[in-house]
Amino acid sequence: MLILITYDVNTQTEAGRRRLRKVAKQCVNYGQRVQNSVFECQMDAAKCREVKAILENIIDKDVDSLRFYYIGDKYKNKVEHIGAKPGFDVKDPLIF
Amino acid sequence: MLILITYDVNTQTEAGRRRLRKVAKQCVNYGQRVQNSVFECQMDAAKCREVKAILENIIDKDVDSLRFYYIGDKYKNKVEHIGAKPGFDVKDPLIF
Repeated sequence: MLILITYDVNTQTEAGRRRLRKVAKQCVNYGQRVQNSVFECQMDAAKCREVKAILENIIDKDVDSLRFYYIGDKYKNKVEHIGAKPGFDVKDPLIF
Repeated sequence: MLILITYDVNTQTEAGRRRLRKVAKQCVNYGQRVQNSVFECQMDAAKCREVKAILENIIDKDVDSLRFYYIGDKYKNKVEHIGAKPGFDVKDPLIF
């Protein structure tokens, strides 16, 4: 099923910027980056629990957040993209 | 129906930062900000066309992007939030 992961990581500190890099690095193991803080992941419930546990351990829940959107299997007509296509390098600092 | 709007605006230039502020300012007229670049909007197809046209006019399609996710009406179990709750001030520069 298609699951969307979006995140906000507070990058005002060096520790925050490190968390952001870690979150992004983990997410690429589970899905495709479609925007800077948005990943689309094709995964089952078990994989989703796995990545959720990993990400929960990385973020600072007082200042960062994660959102999971369970889009389901029939998503072809549920997603629309306008503008630049993503071309992110996961080694980039990912901050802008 | 619940429609998710996510955006990436390239803020490397002052013009980009201006576009980012404009996009966010428009989005708050249509829905609730749940993360820095993620809005959840309860709207019908007509409203969605309206905001889409407005946002398309603001962004630079070569470097920015918009994504629309049509989540539908039954979304209660489709969204999960972990961590900090959003508390954005729309007048903030919205860049971090």
